[in-house]
Amino acid sequence: MTDLARLRLDQVHALTLQVLQAHGVSVAQAQAIADTITAAERDDCKSHGLFRLPGYVSSVRSGKVTPDAVPQLRDLAPAIVQVDGQNGFAPLALRLGCVPLAEKARRHGIAALAVTRIYHFAALWPEVEALAAQGLVALAWTAAMSYVAPAGGNKPLYGTNPMAFAWPRVGHPPLVFDQASSASARGEIQLHLRAGAPLPEGWAIDADGHPTTDAAAALAGAQLPFGGYKGAAIALMIELLAGALIGEVFSFEASERDNHDGGPPVGGELIIAVEPTRCVGHGDRPRQLAHAEQLFARILAQEGTRLPSDRRYAARQRTPTEGITMPQALYEELLSLAGRKTF
Amino acid sequence: MTDLARLRLDQVHALTLQVLQAHGVSVAQAQAIADTITAAERDDCKSHGLFRLPGYVSSVRSGKVTPDAVPQLRDLAPAIVQVDGQNGFAPLALRLGCVPLAEKARRHGIAALAVTRIYHFAALWPEVEALAAQGLVALAWTAAMSYVAPAGGNKPLYGTNPMAFAWPRVGHPPLVFDQASSASARGEIQLHLRAGAPLPEGWAIDADGHPTTDAAAALAGAQLPFGGYKGAAIALMIELLAGALIGEVFSFEASERDNHDGGPPVGGELIIAVEPTRCVGHGDRPRQLAHAEQLFARILAQEGTRLPSDRRYAARQRTPTEGITMPQALYEELLSLAGRKTF
Repeated sequence: MTDLARLRLDQVHALTLQVLQAHGVSVAQAQAIADTITAAERDDCKSHGLFRLPGYVSSVRSGKVTPDAVPQLRDLAPAIVQVDGQNGFAPLALRLGCVPLAEKARRHGIAALAVTRIYHFAALWPEVEALAAQGLVALAWTAAMSYVAPAGGNKPLYGTNPMAFAWPRVGHPPLVFDQASSASARGEIQLHLRAGAPLPEGWAIDADGHPTTDAAAALAGAQLPFGGYKGAAIALMIELLAGALIGEVFSFEASERDNHDGGPPVGGELIIAVEPTRCVGHGDRPRQLAHAEQLFARILAQEGTRLPSDRRYAARQRTPTEGITMPQALYEELLSLAGRKTF
Repeated sequence: MTDLARLRLDQVHALTLQVLQAHGVSVAQAQAIADTITAAERDDCKSHGLFRLPGYVSSVRSGKVTPDAVPQLRDLAPAIVQVDGQNGFAPLALRLGCVPLAEKARRHGIAALAVTRIYHFAALWPEVEALAAQGLVALAWTAAMSYVAPAGGNKPLYGTNPMAFAWPRVGHPPLVFDQASSASARGEIQLHLRAGAPLPEGWAIDADGHPTTDAAAALAGAQLPFGGYKGAAIALMIELLAGALIGEVFSFEASERDNHDGGPPVGGELIIAVEPTRCVGHGDRPRQLAHAEQLFARILAQEGTRLPSDRRYAARQRTPTEGITMPQALYEELLSLAGRKTF
């Protein structure tokens, strides 16, 4: 058994702040990151929680990321806003950009936010959920490191390229999904390697392009997209939307440029927000969100189903009182990074 | 061997017009449908070509579709335009709506077209390709008949819900993909049934929810999304975008309402168009499309790859001179529907 440390959510937030500020991360950057990491822990998304904090620190220590970057807004068109992250981490840039994005979506019906020069080390659901909590429909895409083979190919090219979608609900938190376009997360392959366990079929190919269930061979080869050529098409689309469209790098360029310090690569993110009430005539507005609930009811009427994000929301009910746990070794590493003995 | 009839593309167009006009379809509706069917035959997309024409006729004969519908434009917001298809077929409504969509995208940077009350019996690539040929990035989604089980479920709920994406290229026709969110097309299962061939694993479940490779059992059960729960999430998103968001029906409602005359169900389509030059600062515009070509070159540098839509464009080189073929039986059926003996 792994020894576990237990923290309250306010302690997660405070510890994250202390670790980041001990390494010169500005208050504004650190607050935004701490909010994002705390939200992940609150929702039991361990892979984007405190586990990521050493990587944030590595990228500051290596000089790759600017720890006190001040993101800059630029109005590119009536319905397009850009936020240049100035080589800082993503959360502060997103927080800044989503305000005019929402305002533009309400005014014009639809709008886009192009986020550039950021280091994104979190999930995408926080930004789309926050937009949907304001009544907007939101879509987000980002590219990453070059790990995934294109359709028919056998060498890494695309990132694990996630996309996220959020739909506002009445009386419920938004319906949200956030999924990689690779068959598995990179981290899942690393966990199989550590455990000495074979990979499921369909996750990866080896360096010669042959299907493999060996985790080490997979890491030396390429990951596969989910769902064959259709998932590869989605990965390709995400490269274009979060790369060339907004003047940012593709995953293969991010990988070539990266110093492999264990932190995130540079890149961009595209978010589209839609004001649903502007997509129908006046008479149809009252029915719009209630109509969606009828679909959700049909889904849940089938045994074995659940809605995307319901697992996160269930965790969100528990963690404010129960707190969260993490491996004792990670806790000690974080205390050490914060320059403390206890917390 | 099936006997084949051969036609030139102009004959495909003329035959389609004659069949439709013989059944009271207005000139404007018939021209738009003939353009769409001819484009499918030109690109060797047989499943959306002349093969569909008897279904168009069935839906006019049954009284389901209004053969002389005049689609109506409505400006819903600065960046949102609606076209109400007035219960006609999709192609004319799309043709009408894509003009203000492109204009709004250029003016505001991004815009959306909500197409309602249409009967869509074609692929989605024609509309997104046409937008990308004008320099825009385009995304489209539409729902369909209720055939696909939700994640974890075992009864049909979602449509085969296609999405399409198009990216403008310099010196090439646009990069385009258009793919169902089901593991297979409905028609592919029907073809396996006729051929008495087993289905590939992963396409369908039977009426009891068990995986099946029996085509008849699959048609009585439910199709599966591509790529497991991730494809199901995309199918769900498409229900929301092409349904509740624009005030249109979900697939399960379209199925319940349909008279099953062999033609298409009623429904909606959402198209988003983005002006790429408005997504970057002035200095980055010259590089934008050239940058994407670098990604395409990386894809094609890997053995075994091709770009989405390259197969269609290769057919487009051949068919203007070679013409197209179809089963003699279909040709005779179409002649009969046109009230002719030869063509």
